[in-house]
This record gives sequence, structure tokens and C-alpha cells, in this order.
Amino acid sequence: MGKGIKIVTIGGGSSYTPELVEGFIKRYDELPVRELWLVDIEAGKEKLEIVGSLAKRMIEKAGLAIKVHLTLDRKVALKDADFVTTQFRVGLLDARAKDERIPLSHGVLGQETNGPGGLFKGLRTIPVILDIVKDMKELCPDAWLINFTNPAGMVTEAVLRYTDHRKIVGLCNVPIGIEMGVAKLLDVDHSRIRIDFAGLNHMVYGLDVYLDGVSVKDRVIELLSIPENSSFVRNVEGQGWEPEFIRALNVLTCPYHLYYYKRDEMLEKELKNFKEGTTRAEVVKKLEEELFELYKDPTLSIKPPQLEERGGAYYSDAAVRLISSIYNDKRDIQPVNTMNNGAIASIPYESAVEVSCVITKEGPKPIINGDLPVPVRGLVQQIKSFERVGAEAAVTGNYDTALLAMTINPLVPSDKVGKAILDEMLEAHKEHLPQFFQTVDV
Amino acid sequence: MGKGIKIVTIGGGSSYTPELVEGFIKRYDELPVRELWLVDIEAGKEKLEIVGSLAKRMIEKAGLAIKVHLTLDRKVALKDADFVTTQFRVGLLDARAKDERIPLSHGVLGQETNGPGGLFKGLRTIPVILDIVKDMKELCPDAWLINFTNPAGMVTEAVLRYTDHRKIVGLCNVPIGIEMGVAKLLDVDHSRIRIDFAGLNHMVYGLDVYLDGVSVKDRVIELLSIPENSSFVRNVEGQGWEPEFIRALNVLTCPYHLYYYKRDEMLEKELKNFKEGTTRAEVVKKLEEELFELYKDPTLSIKPPQLEERGGAYYSDAAVRLISSIYNDKRDIQPVNTMNNGAIASIPYESAVEVSCVITKEGPKPIINGDLPVPVRGLVQQIKSFERVGAEAAVTGNYDTALLAMTINPLVPSDKVGKAILDEMLEAHKEHLPQFFQTVDV
Amino acid sequence: MGKGIKIVTIGGGSSYTPELVEGFIKRYDELPVRELWLVDIEAGKEKLEIVGSLAKRMIEKAGLAIKVHLTLDRKVALKDADFVTTQFRVGLLDARAKDERIPLSHGVLGQETNGPGGLFKGLRTIPVILDIVKDMKELCPDAWLINFTNPAGMVTEAVLRYTDHRKIVGLCNVPIGIEMGVAKLLDVDHSRIRIDFAGLNHMVYGLDVYLDGVSVKDRVIELLSIPENSSFVRNVEGQGWEPEFIRALNVLTCPYHLYYYKRDEMLEKELKNFKEGTTRAEVVKKLEEELFELYKDPTLSIKPPQLEERGGAYYSDAAVRLISSIYNDKRDIQPVNTMNNGAIASIPYESAVEVSCVITKEGPKPIINGDLPVPVRGLVQQIKSFERVGAEAAVTGNYDTALLAMTINPLVPSDKVGKAILDEMLEAHKEHLPQFFQTVDV
Amino acid sequence: MGKGIKIVTIGGGSSYTPELVEGFIKRYDELPVRELWLVDIEAGKEKLEIVGSLAKRMIEKAGLAIKVHLTLDRKVALKDADFVTTQFRVGLLDARAKDERIPLSHGVLGQETNGPGGLFKGLRTIPVILDIVKDMKELCPDAWLINFTNPAGMVTEAVLRYTDHRKIVGLCNVPIGIEMGVAKLLDVDHSRIRIDFAGLNHMVYGLDVYLDGVSVKDRVIELLSIPENSSFVRNVEGQGWEPEFIRALNVLTCPYHLYYYKRDEMLEKELKNFKEGTTRAEVVKKLEEELFELYKDPTLSIKPPQLEERGGAYYSDAAVRLISSIYNDKRDIQPVNTMNNGAIASIPYESAVEVSCVITKEGPKPIINGDLPVPVRGLVQQIKSFERVGAEAAVTGNYDTALLAMTINPLVPSDKVGKAILDEMLEAHKEHLPQFFQTVDV
Repeated sequence: MGKGIKIVTIGGGSSYTPELVEGFIKRYDELPVRELWLVDIEAGKEKLEIVGSLAKRMIEKAGLAIKVHLTLDRKVALKDADFVTTQFRVGLLDARAKDERIPLSHGVLGQETNGPGGLFKGLRTIPVILDIVKDMKELCPDAWLINFTNPAGMVTEAVLRYTDHRKIVGLCNVPIGIEMGVAKLLDVDHSRIRIDFAGLNHMVYGLDVYLDGVSVKDRVIELLSIPENSSFVRNVEGQGWEPEFIRALNVLTCPYHLYYYKRDEMLEKELKNFKEGTTRAEVVKKLEEELFELYKDPTLSIKPPQLEERGGAYYSDAAVRLISSIYNDKRDIQPVNTMNNGAIASIPYESAVEVSCVITKEGPKPIINGDLPVPVRGLVQQIKSFERVGAEAAVTGNYDTALLAMTINPLVPSDKVGKAILDEMLEAHKEHLPQFFQTVDV
Repeated sequence: MGKGIKIVTIGGGSSYTPELVEGFIKRYDELPVRELWLVDIEAGKEKLEIVGSLAKRMIEKAGLAIKVHLTLDRKVALKDADFVTTQFRVGLLDARAKDERIPLSHGVLGQETNGPGGLFKGLRTIPVILDIVKDMKELCPDAWLINFTNPAGMVTEAVLRYTDHRKIVGLCNVPIGIEMGVAKLLDVDHSRIRIDFAGLNHMVYGLDVYLDGVSVKDRVIELLSIPENSSFVRNVEGQGWEPEFIRALNVLTCPYHLYYYKRDEMLEKELKNFKEGTTRAEVVKKLEEELFELYKDPTLSIKPPQLEERGGAYYSDAAVRLISSIYNDKRDIQPVNTMNNGAIASIPYESAVEVSCVITKEGPKPIINGDLPVPVRGLVQQIKSFERVGAEAAVTGNYDTALLAMTINPLVPSDKVGKAILDEMLEAHKEHLPQFFQTVDV
Repeated sequence: MGKGIKIVTIGGGSSYTPELVEGFIKRYDELPVRELWLVDIEAGKEKLEIVGSLAKRMIEKAGLAIKVHLTLDRKVALKDADFVTTQFRVGLLDARAKDERIPLSHGVLGQETNGPGGLFKGLRTIPVILDIVKDMKELCPDAWLINFTNPAGMVTEAVLRYTDHRKIVGLCNVPIGIEMGVAKLLDVDHSRIRIDFAGLNHMVYGLDVYLDGVSVKDRVIELLSIPENSSFVRNVEGQGWEPEFIRALNVLTCPYHLYYYKRDEMLEKELKNFKEGTTRAEVVKKLEEELFELYKDPTLSIKPPQLEERGGAYYSDAAVRLISSIYNDKRDIQPVNTMNNGAIASIPYESAVEVSCVITKEGPKPIINGDLPVPVRGLVQQIKSFERVGAEAAVTGNYDTALLAMTINPLVPSDKVGKAILDEMLEAHKEHLPQFFQTVDV
Repeated sequence: MGKGIKIVTIGGGSSYTPELVEGFIKRYDELPVRELWLVDIEAGKEKLEIVGSLAKRMIEKAGLAIKVHLTLDRKVALKDADFVTTQFRVGLLDARAKDERIPLSHGVLGQETNGPGGLFKGLRTIPVILDIVKDMKELCPDAWLINFTNPAGMVTEAVLRYTDHRKIVGLCNVPIGIEMGVAKLLDVDHSRIRIDFAGLNHMVYGLDVYLDGVSVKDRVIELLSIPENSSFVRNVEGQGWEPEFIRALNVLTCPYHLYYYKRDEMLEKELKNFKEGTTRAEVVKKLEEELFELYKDPTLSIKPPQLEERGGAYYSDAAVRLISSIYNDKRDIQPVNTMNNGAIASIPYESAVEVSCVITKEGPKPIINGDLPVPVRGLVQQIKSFERVGAEAAVTGNYDTALLAMTINPLVPSDKVGKAILDEMLEAHKEHLPQFFQTVDV
């Protein structure tokens, strides 16, 4: 990396890209990016050009020597990369809308990363990620893969189980969001808060919370037991925990826990969106269209503030912060998805977990907080089982395995309903699930 | 035990007692019972006398020298006992009816050992069991406690966690029922079938099935994937597994798994019973009344065949078989609830599990089959978390802990619904839950 | 096995064979052996014929229909076998003498299964066992491999790690010997004693001892703390434990523990034998010559009593008892070497351990006694590390790995001494260690 | 700590104190020490005054506002302390000389922290540490105990097992020494090297080595296989590893490993010292006398360079660096002794281990590197067993337990020799081992 860093962003035409570019600009002093390759597929060409032009304008305005390349040829981009980030969406927002609407039409939660929707996003995404890893092994074997593509837990699990590439980090903005929320709740600067995170992606708990190094968990839990405080993270809103429940649980939850500890209420809310045509994909689709209209403006040379409403807040910060910490061997503590290696007892060593890690040049190293509390152990294990079986289904394209993953998901009410959803979703996503439809000549 | 065995049965006035007596009669040659003490409480005095008289007639008819004692004084009975069996029901069938009907009135499964009903049966039962253990430590410290009282998993967990008595075995007729069902399915004698059981009480899986020592699991799974075969155990009827699901799960399930893998369908069925006033407690209450009418008949001196419809089939066989195996050091293999000690990885050593054990004079020793399959690990862990938190709530009488147990149960849809059910059930069972209502003088 | 059982004994020319034959004769009623194939190599042809003739005479005298085949062609023998027993010695007693004498010449314990001698016996034996397993996979994939060939722990580890054959049981007469010794100490019949064994081959501990199902461990430990009682097993004599030591250790030891807990005294004794030319191999060689003289006698048609002095007492009983228990699904408890699967915490699931198992038609299933006591955990782990590294060296023929195995063995005083012994032994056993001397063409 | 930090140093009269003082002076900017209390016992009063005066002169010369207090009253000192460091030696160097010479007189390694000497240092030290912790719970419950007193592993184990104080860190200069040695070997600055340490105190391995974040383990191992490089740490000199051994071991060792992997050679060397009256205690005693002569010089107001020869090099740096990292929440990575909590599989969660930790205001948090390599797992487990049994003996004063600890130590050749050493050492250290000699009135 002597001559500066080469970054490759798969899914470079994403509406998030300006955040990422902003992140690189802000940290150029410590993270001398030489080349930024934005890669996308044919179907995303137009967006890639819009976003790519904006990226170039932003860098030009900042007066930096980062060279932006736009390409549809992934292999050309990957050659000798230092970091590869992935933020693509197989099937675009239309696929997400199906992930949300089909389960809901069966009375089951439809969501991008949880339940049947999460499973299908995994089934579509994992084969592509494994292909990218295959290319990386050939073209840039020492590069780090920084994956933001959801479902990050299942995707990281798949890379750890089905490849020998170990330089992968799954990234999520949920933990940062929780830290931000706690900071706001306590009315202190974010930098003074640290949380011991442990669990899985979108199933992560804060086991302890520190303000200036002193545990303030009891105080935070007490504040969270006041209903108006309990949902402090954008994107998913809750109605507040029953105070006695959150006190007895005695750990910080993440917004996605609402789907499990408030299953009925969340379902009801989503069903309302379903009927009104305002599921998240539908909302985001409109937001994205507006964003791309903004991006097209040739006088725009900064990240437009409207992007923050998109829902990916802190992603840019999380991603560039992580890359910088690896590059600079910063040894700061960040919650990421990585190989468990014993950080959480009762989860296999080789599985992916989301835990606070110290970030070194050698990558993230989980720090140890002992075992998960008894009350949360079960749900974490259950989602891990779901992720493992789901990853297996994605790789094998086996129908029975997919039904198994579907049925053991705690949001799916039965094998029968699961099968109905599975059949309809397989058909709907057929184009992006070749592994389930290939005719094999024997 | 030189002069013959002393058995004490707590809850001796139960309708099941004739089965137990029959079991002792059948095996008198190998199990020389000298005294059988049937113990009950004041409220059960009448039933105790009816059942006790029948027991005496049965033994007289068999021409055996077993002396039957009826008493309301537990301590007198326990003195120097060899085996203590527990089959009582705190609050009788009325309490069971509440356990079933209150959750259903909130649209949540109401069942004796699962979900909110299981939790409340535990909250009522555990303090009594711990009292019995306390008496045993004083009066018969070397006696075995053979517990059939449900929820057997949570009860065994409580004894292992909150007492130092280790001579406890939790017994259930579900595994025997599964073996019987498999034998019938294969049209072979029960004695030729053996199943490797592992899991928790009412959450037990058959990891492998042997016919004459040769694995026939694939064949059995194939048979079970035919809907009409899949529910072969009395008491809880299902509608058959989706064939692809059971094939991918690739282990034998127990009937209670229907509540988890067919949550909606089972709920619908129970709601129908709820509306028709035919929940299990209501049905059983009628059955019991009929049984006690039969028992009163002074000419009856055998176990009446109608008892088999009651639902406790094989219990007698299971209990007496277990006592005989311990007494005779038979070293046969039986599935029971005992301390895990490493038999199931990822469940703590000191927790209760239901696993195939070799039964020796020193008690049951789990046999090892390796770890649980990935797809079932999550649900088992989740129920174990529920059992541990529930046992803690039973011992402490802490409201928040009880709400936590309620909410982490996979059948309860949210903390809010859980709280509503909890509050209503606490009030309804107030009389039998002193630990939640005591005024503590400080 | 409908037409009777086919047994194949590799190393059939061994002096132990008459014991085995006697075992089959004694149990013919329950174990209908149809064919017994004694297999040996060219160098053992004469012995095979002597022993084979005796075997035939024994069977004829017993009036049984077992057909004895003698062959040098292993593949012919293995075809459709039901049980394969292995009791061969690569390099015969001359190799054993080197295993004993070379380490002793460097002032290090020389012994057949411990220290450098054990390592080299493993290095010679493992490739042959893996070859046999390869043949079995082809010719009798459902047969059980009953291995008595030492070092049984390292050999079983190698089969479990480097093949996918799981039907292997490593057998040792040490645990039976301990049970016999305890029975004698308590002056009761052997059948009334049962011991919970756990550990590794030749590193096995008795965690508890039962007389008629009641723990008598304290009494036995107290008896063992009387020096004259402490070494009750033939073959290896000790001088008695320090009473305070054995009381604090509080478990039963096996004779081989003397090499570790009385390292200096045992070494001194062996050095005396070394000087006098009376190491075990040298003694046994003479015994064997005498035995074969006896075997030649055409009027001999029983196992001669002198064989008992040979040191393999109870082997016949152990082996045939095990085969019969598997064949008859006896579910009795026997200590054997099998896959750990969680029976001993802190030893990997897939490693070989020696533990009490219930013997079923599906093979041995470890029974659970919780974790090893703290004081013995370290030594067991150390020998397991030695076995694993040794097995790897045997398979790879890697010099460095062999030196590592040698040096981490607790009987070897340093890397330097280890290297000197290694070099001399490699040269001495060159003929039987082709994997270390192959020229590889690249 | 608003008004500056209060440090209490138990054993303040130690010859090491000037290093510590130098450390505080060097880092005063980041670590504003307000009070330094040097505590000692009556017997150490003279040394305390000498060292205390030097400390005052050093601080005065540096022109800092640190107030130095000298006292024999521990309780007065502990009141409201922020950090307590312990560097005392029960029985002074005379006791150390016995720890070294008595085992050697029996032909067994005599060393301060390994073998019988290490056990006895633990037996003398642990009761005193537990007393200090008891005082801390009362007088400064939130203070950190930074323990340098050896045997740091057994001492930390004892605090974790026998108290509920969790704010303890066991510190050792060995890991820093290894890092320094590697830096020198590679001819780079120490700050560019980081090593993943895992194991136990004085039994720690470097699992990987990074130069500027890139693994250079293979290169370092290759360099270490050159004999003249292999012993790069002062205090204990070795003769170089057999190249094939260290290559196959494939991890970095610490100097104390020489006692295990070069047992005979190290013993021979120590026996030579024994005969010449130059065991370490004897050498150090002379060094200390010389040091105290220097310290007395009223014109001396810096740490005299001769102290570096004393053998405690880097201690000052390690201790003050650790205190500063906790105080400043530096989150840097340091190898310390702390509760395992899953960092090393197969070692219990609640045991002490020496591992690389990230140092936060909440204390050290182990970072995860997966399991220990197979070849070293056994020895680590064995020393952990020794430490646990030794700690138990120290607390209970039980003779049998002490003999058990002695005998399972890999440096002790037998229970018999162990008993002889135990008896002689108990007698020799009688004054400092009241727990073994108390008359208990019953």
C-alpha cells in the first residue's frame, strides 16, 4: 500500500456511495486512498454513472488526489485491491419489496434481514459474495472484504464456512446507532460511551455500558424502561418496553429485537404498511429516486443531507472508520461481525458473531466478556441455527434445507405456512436463485 | 432395603395411582415393595381414600404382602423411604383449566407444560417440590426422588440449581410413547426398538432409531413424512409434517414440538377447544370424575381399562421400570431427566436435560451421542433459558423475573401480551403463589 | 451374520491367539462363530502354523463347528468379515526390545506404550492399521475393528483423525485388571464391582468405585494408601503410593501412572533391567519361545496355563466379551477406547478417549460422569497432545513433528535428549518406518 | 481521582521501588500521582527508610508534587487508594534461597516460581494477598490491585477463586521481555512489534508475532532456530532449541519453558550453582546489598543503572504503563494475568490466564486468538492444575493437598521425592506458613 490505498466498492452505484466518499475525504490525512473503483452490473450502469460523477465532483471539490474509476468489470477492479467493500443488492429494491410483501401476504413479518425476507436476501446474496471471494483469492488475496451487504450475519457465516478467506469483516450500523442513542439519552458526547456488544448481526446485545470507563448500565436500563426512551434508533420504531421486562432482561437490546419480543405488535404495524403500500422497500424506493434526482445535479459536490433519511446513517462512518483502524493499526474497539473463536461460549468457534473487537492491522480480534446472559442465550442460538441452515441452503440450492431454515426461524409460525411462503418466494425470485432451478445433467 | 422397599407417593390420591399399583404388582418378583405410602393434602382426602381403597383391593387380589398406608402427614410417610414419587397437582384440575384458558383468552397457546401455562405450573409446583426435598434431606436423605410432576424439566432444573439433593430423576412418558409409536409404525415389538433421545423435557428429539441395533432412522423419517403417520402419540394430535421439513430436520420429534413448528395451527385448534369448553383440563376433569366413580366400586380390584384414555399411558410402566432398574442395577437404557454433565454440549453441566441414560444402582448416567444437530440447537437452548429463568422466578417470587420468563418463551408474542397474561394469571393463582404475594417485613 | 459370525484376526500367529480361541469356545452359545481367519505376514508364517494348528485342535476338542482358516493374504480374509481383531506387532519382539533399550541407553524410560518406545510403536503401527482400515472399507465396510494393538490410544486417535471409519474400538486389559484388583482387595466377586473409568489408554483413572451399586471409593482409596496394596495389577509393579498423595488424588490410578508419579523410581528399576538384559521384551521373548514349544505339542488341545504369565491376562475375556456385547446388544458397561464426543470436557469431541461405555449393537456409547478432577486434567491433556502429534508424525513421516511428539512427552527430559533418542531409533527401526525414509520424486 | 491518584505499594522497601518511582516521574503528565504510600513490615523498616528517602529525592529532583508516605500500617495506607501494587517477598531472600536450595539438594529444580520453590512461594504469599484483598474490600473497594508478587499465576488464581474482588491484574515482565528480544532480533524498534500472547504466567506462548501489523512469525521462528538467538531474555539463559523442535512447535516460548523442554540441562546448570553457592537468591542477595549501599547515598536522586542487573528490567515500565492505560482508558494491548472468561478454551472461565488484553478503564479484556495449539495444550493444562491445587493448599493449609500439588508438578519426579522435599520445606518455612501448623481447638 506504499503508493496509497486501492479501494474497490462492489455495488458502487448504490445511493450510499456519497457517504462513503465523504468518509474517505474526511479521513484522507490518515487514510491516503489512491484509487476508488466503483463496480456495478449492467442493470445498475446508469446509477453508477450518476453516483460516480457525484463522487468525482466531491473529490475534486475537496482537492484530493483520489482517482475514481467506474467499471462493470469486477475482475479488472479487484486486481491488487487493498480493501473491497460490498454494498450491492441482488434484484434491487424490487426484490426487497417482494421480501417484505410476500411474507406479509401470508400474515408473517416481511423484513429485509429477519424472517423469510432475511432468508431470501441471503439465498440471493451468498452465491454472489462467494463468487467475489473467489475472484479476490485470485486477484487480491491479501485484501480485506468489508461487507455491508445484508443479511451480514448469514453472509459472513457463509464466507467463513464455505471459503478459506478469513479477511472478512461484516459491518453493521446498528451498534453505532445504539451507542449514539445512549449518548443522546445521557446527553453526553458519543466518544465518552462504550458498550460491550455481543450477539449476532441484528441480534446484538449491549452487555454493559460505560461512560468514561465507568459502568452506567443500571442507569441506562432505568432510562430505557421509560417507554418514550426505549426506541432511540432510526429505521425501526418500537413502542417502548414493558419496564419490568427490560429491567429483568438487564441488557441493551437492538431495534431488531422488537420483532421477537414484540412480535405481534410489529407484525400489526407492518401489515398496516403492507395494506397502504408503504413497506420499507416502497418508501425507500421513492427516497432513492429523489436522491438520484439530487445526485444528477452537476452543481452538487457534497453528500446531500437528505441521504441521512435513507436509513443508512453512520454506515459511512462505520466503514471508513474500520478501514482506517485496520490500515493504521489503531487498536480501537468496534463491534463487527467476525469469527467467534470462543468469544461467545456455546456458539461454535468457526461461526460468525457480532462482538466488540479491538481493530488491529491483523484485523478485528474479539474481546472477551464471558458468556451471554441466560435469558438471551436461547434466542441468539436460534438465530445462529437459522443463519447456518440458511447459508447451507444458499450454497446447495436444496429445497428441503431452505424449508428447514424457514421453519426454524422464530418469526415463521409453522412448517405449513413456511412452505407456502417458500414456494411463492422461490417463484418470485427465480431469476436470482439459479441454484434452486438448475437442471443438473448427470 | 433389606426388608423390602418403602415407596412414598406424594399426591397419592391421583387418578394415576392404580397404574402405579399395577406396576408394582406386575414386578413384585424383582421389586419387593414392603410398604406403599400414599400421601395427599387435606383437599385431596376423599380421593385419597377412594384410590387408597382400590389400591388395597388390587394388592389383596394379587395376594401380595405390600402394605398400603394412607396419610395426610408427609413427614411421617417420608421417614426412611427408599423411593419417593411425586405426581401431585397444586391447585388440582381447576388450576390446570386456568393455565389453559387464560392464555387462550389472550390469543396465546394455553397448555399444561408449555408457554404461560407451563410457567405457572412451575411457579406453583417448584416451591412444594423444594419443600419435599428439604423434608427428604432430613428424613430419607438416601432416597431417590422420582418426579412425574410437570413441568418436569423446570422442576428438575430447580432441584439441581437450588438444592444439593442429586438423587432426583424427572420422568416423562413421552419418550416411551415415541418408541411405542415407532414400533407400531414399523409393525415390530417395542422391545426391538431403541432411540437415542436428547433434548429437554417435552422438547426431546430422537437423534437415531435402531431396530435390533441397526439404524432405521432414514426409514422412520421417510414413514413420518407421510402425513397420516406423523402424529403417533396419544394426547396431542397433529396434522402431519410437511414431508420436506421433517426430512431436512432429520430427527424424530415429540408431540410437543407441534406447538413450535406448527404454532398457528395448534393455536387455532386450542382456540376452538377454548370456545367449546373442551380444553384438555375440562375434558380430563370429566374423565377423572368418571374414573373416580369407577374406583369407588368395591368390587373393582384391577386398574380399570378406562384409565388408559386418561392420557397417562405408559407412566406406570416408566416409573416402576425406572425404580426397578435402579434397585436391581439393571443398566438398561431409559430416557430420563437428569443432570447434563456434558451430555449435551452448549447446555451447562449442572442443568437438567432429558437424555437416554443407562440406569444403574447409582442412578441414571447419560450416554453420549455427540452434540445436538444444528437445526434443533436453538429451540432447545431457548426452552432451557425459559426453564432456568422460570425456576428462578418460582424460587424468588420476583415479578420482573416472571415477566422475563414469560416473554422469552417462544409461544408468547410480546412483552405486552406476556404482561397482561402474567397479571391475570398471578391474580387467578394467587392462593398457590404465596411467594409473589408475601409482605416482607424489613 | 445370519449364517454365523466371521472373525478375522490380524496377527493371528500371536502367542495370545489360544486365549482368544478359548474365549470363542467358552461363549459359543451366545456368539456363534462360523469362521475364524488367522492372518499373518510371511515372517510370521511358522508361528501362524503352530498357533493355527493348536486353535484347530482346541475347537475340535470342544466339538464346535468353527472353521479355522490360516492365510497370509489379508484381503482374502477380510472379505465380508463381521469383526476384525488386530494383535500384531510390527517388527516383532526385536523391535520392542529396541523401543525399551534405546531410550534406557539415554537414561530415559524405555517402555512399549509410554515415552519414546510408545511413540515408535505408534510410528510403526499406525500406517499398517490405516492400510487395514482401507482394506476394510473396501471388503467389509460394516465390520467392527477391535484393536488390541498398542499404543491403543494413539492408534485409535489415528483411525478417528485420518479415516472415516467409525466402527473401531480400542481395547485394553488394564481397566479389567483394575476391577479384578479392587475385587481382590475387597475380597468380593469381580461381578459385584463397577468402576467409572475415564481418561486415555494407559492413562485411565477410576473416578468412582461401586460395590453392588454403592460407592466404596473412600474405602478403596484408604486400602490403596497402604503401600502393599497399591500395585495390584500384574505386568508393572510399583512400590506403593505415598498415602497422603493417593488420598489427595482421590481417584484410582492405573499401573502406568507409576511412570509419571514415580518417574525416577520406575526409571531406576528399568535401568537395572536394562543392565541385566531383563527388560520386558527380553523376558517376554523367552516366555514366547517356551510358549511356542508348548503349542507345538500335538497332544495339546487347550490353552496352556503358562500363557497367563505372558502378561496378557484378561485380554481374551475383554475381547470376546466386547464382541459378544456388540453382537448381542448386551448394553453392559465396559471401558474401551472410542470417540470422545463430549464424554471428557476439554478433550476434543473427535479424539479417542478410554471411558466406561455402554456396549450396544451400535457400538460403545460413553457414559457421562462430568469433567475430570482438576489434579488429573493436566496429565491427561498432555498425553492427548502427545498422542495427536505422534499420530500426525506417523501419518506424515515428518521428522520435525516426530521430534515435537518426542519432546512434549513428559518422560523425555529435553529436546536435545529427545533428538538423540529419535535419531538412534529412526535408524534402528528404519525397515519399518518407510514414511520417514522415502525419497519423494517431485 | 479528581484530585490526583493515590498509589499504595505493599512491599515498598523493595529494591525495585526506584524503578517504579522513575516510572511515575516519567509519566507524570498523563498520570497525575498525588500520593505514593510505601508500606512495609517491621522487619523491612530499615530498607523502607532507605528506599523511601531515595524516592523522595528522586521526586524532589524531578520537581513534582507527588507526596511520598512511608508506613508500617497497611490499613492507614489503603484508605481510599486508587491503585495498590504488591511487590513484597514473604520471608525475604532467605526464603527464596530455601526455595531454591532445598529442592536442589534432592536433585530437583529449585526455582522461585516453578516446581517446589514456586509452590512454596505461593503457600507463603497467598494468605498475605488474601488479607490485603480483605483490607481493600473494606478501605478501597474500587481500587485496582496490580500484583507483581510471584508466583503471579497462582496468586491471581487464588484471588479469583477465594475472594469476590475482580479488580486484580497479575503482572509479569516476561512478555515485554520477549517483545524486546524479538525487536532486537529483527533489529527494529520495540513499538513496531506486537505478539499474541496466550498461556499462563511463566508459561506463556507467543502464538503470532507482528511487525507493523504483518505476521513475521515464520521469520522469527526461523531466527530462533539458530541456537545463539534462542535465549534472548535476561535472567534465565538457555542453550538454544533444537531447530527442528522449535520449528515444529511453531510458537514463541518464554524463558521458563526451558525448565520443561530442557529439564535435564537446566537442572544440571542449577545443580552447579547449588554447589557453588550461586543460586539466584544468593546472587541477588549480594546485588541487593550493593544496591542498598548505593541507595543510601544522599546525593543519589535517580534510579541507579545497576538496578537493571537485578533482573526486574521492564517491571517499572510494565506496571506504570498498565496503571496509566487503565487510568487513561488507553485501550492498548498488553499481556497480563486476568480471568480467562473463555479466552483459552479448555481452561475454566473463572481461572487466571496470561493473555494479550486490551486495557480499558474497566480493566483488561482478553482478546481472542482461538484455542491453544495442540502441542502446548497439555503443558498449560498441567501447570493450571498445579496452580489450582497449590492455591487450594495455600488457603486450607492441608498437607495432603500440598503433597498433591507438589507431585503433579512436572518438575517433581515422584510422590516420594515430593514428600521428602515437602516435609523439609514445610519445616524450613514454618514461620511463614501458620496455616499448616495451627493447632485447632475442637
